[in-house]
Amino acid sequence: MRIAIDAMGGDNAPECNVQGVLAAAQAWSDIELLLVGDEARLEPLLTSRPANVRIVHAASTIEADDEPVKAVRRKKDASMVVAGRMVREGEADCMISAGNTGALMTTGLLVVGRMAGVERPALSPMIPTMDGRGVLALDLGANMDAKPEHLVQYALMGSIYREKVHGIPKPRVGLLNVGTEAMKGNELTKQVYPMLEQLPIHFVGNVEARDVLEGSCDVLVCDGFVGNVLLKSLEGTAGSLFSVLKQEFTRSWYTKLAAAVLMPGLKRLKKMMDYKEHGGAPLLGLNGLVLKAHGSSDARAIENAVRQARTALQHDLIHTIATEIGGTTSGK
Amino acid sequence: MRIAIDAMGGDNAPECNVQGVLAAAQAWSDIELLLVGDEARLEPLLTSRPANVRIVHAASTIEADDEPVKAVRRKKDASMVVAGRMVREGEADCMISAGNTGALMTTGLLVVGRMAGVERPALSPMIPTMDGRGVLALDLGANMDAKPEHLVQYALMGSIYREKVHGIPKPRVGLLNVGTEAMKGNELTKQVYPMLEQLPIHFVGNVEARDVLEGSCDVLVCDGFVGNVLLKSLEGTAGSLFSVLKQEFTRSWYTKLAAAVLMPGLKRLKKMMDYKEHGGAPLLGLNGLVLKAHGSSDARAIENAVRQARTALQHDLIHTIATEIGGTTSGK
Repeated sequence: MRIAIDAMGGDNAPECNVQGVLAAAQAWSDIELLLVGDEARLEPLLTSRPANVRIVHAASTIEADDEPVKAVRRKKDASMVVAGRMVREGEADCMISAGNTGALMTTGLLVVGRMAGVERPALSPMIPTMDGRGVLALDLGANMDAKPEHLVQYALMGSIYREKVHGIPKPRVGLLNVGTEAMKGNELTKQVYPMLEQLPIHFVGNVEARDVLEGSCDVLVCDGFVGNVLLKSLEGTAGSLFSVLKQEFTRSWYTKLAAAVLMPGLKRLKKMMDYKEHGGAPLLGLNGLVLKAHGSSDARAIENAVRQARTALQHDLIHTIATEIGGTTSGK
Repeated sequence: MRIAIDAMGGDNAPECNVQGVLAAAQAWSDIELLLVGDEARLEPLLTSRPANVRIVHAASTIEADDEPVKAVRRKKDASMVVAGRMVREGEADCMISAGNTGALMTTGLLVVGRMAGVERPALSPMIPTMDGRGVLALDLGANMDAKPEHLVQYALMGSIYREKVHGIPKPRVGLLNVGTEAMKGNELTKQVYPMLEQLPIHFVGNVEARDVLEGSCDVLVCDGFVGNVLLKSLEGTAGSLFSVLKQEFTRSWYTKLAAAVLMPGLKRLKKMMDYKEHGGAPLLGLNGLVLKAHGSSDARAIENAVRQARTALQHDLIHTIATEIGGTTSGK
């Protein structure tokens, strides 16, 4: 199992990326880790020399504010693009990047390439839930407009991912909607609902936005626009509430004292709401495994992303998805 | 100014509806209040007999779990439908109901009727914001699918409402989107953006879901499906966080003590997040003013809805909207 890591992508690159890779190399001897990036900068960061870590030189870097499509097309020697090419050429089984999300989606599409039969790959992060299990939501921004058949493929791919990578037997797949009744929703969800009923998955019907946090499903299917609105409103509400709480709690010496007593509970809650805790987001529907690690990933987050990639590879995720998608597409 | 109140709609009807109407009658002698409902049940509730309150008999009631379209079509003598007919016939200038939302939207469409030039009326509640001002969001569920021209009309109507009813000069109108740049979004928002720039409103561009609570605009425009997801995820996140906080705060005697100290602050925050505080939601784009009061309205909420209706009527809201919509439509 060879995993290529974009050593230059992310707010804490390349230092944390290298540290995370070194920790992962020590933890799992059955994987080979390929650090893709500027050799001159990476070499001095290798504080140890595990046999299963190798530097692959890439001269340039895609920056956080680069325009995605332009950057991927022009910077052919960027660490992210080189890692993508290694996946396409079979030199790596997976790539991980904490860099520019738009550029990574473009690399997935233009460099790694779509899986046969998949029209639209999906960005599939975990949304935190109150029960701590989280829900895999897709699509959360790779494609703004979706057709019914795209959502059908999201449902299939998400279900397989949860089963293979998270070990959930029969993951509950829900359709994000404005009501629980089958005939609720817009044109898209009304068309998709009966199609999801026909799939070989555990479809639990419509799920309302207010129930997502309560953990009412393991996979949540939606178009990229709505998914993005959902994720950002969850994040925004949590963020706004915490900042007002902070204000209220620092009003006087006795509220400060009381807040100090409650701090462990508040910290638990904040951690529960932190989607960084849930590891990288897979880009599903590509000709290889591509994982997006959070932009502010530290060494532990990178190590976790490697763990996730290793589990996915061990369970032959991509091949399973390809078989299922092939079966569903040809069965039409 | 004659305001018809569906006396039988809402969780606390008819008692609280009557109490609210009596309070409003005392507060404002320049309005006439028409209590529409079962005379035999309403008569005994009239603890005082103000000259500006009158009962209008309606034999039946639309229940919370009635199927909207069927109920409005069949129960022609239901209090909600009778109130709607009074608006259509010019016997009332406005109607207020705390009853079944779907049935009220249907009453608006089928009984009151659409305003000339308006294709899709919009349900326009206030979403609470951290600065306490709130944002009028439309559409939040009247129409699941929207065309660009619908969103253009939502923007116009919402802007006029905020100016006339809430006294905000040049309300800031935002388009709910996945990024702030002009070219972001799905097909719908990309098409709408340049159209909103051409309107005689203060268009502030795209607004992301995470910034809505921070009060970054006064009017938020979106299609009904996305709006519904946004509102429910705001409510759901706030609700889930409060329930986990409660759990954390009652872990032991000392966390309970600390929580008691912080209670006033928490209550302020909870009140800030309570959309009932913001009064009724207008259904905009109809041939008369229709206000949806919250289902759990108490007497004060009904009185507030009457206040809101009175302000709208004083500022000739419906006529202003009709003129603007006419101007924009004919100007094409």
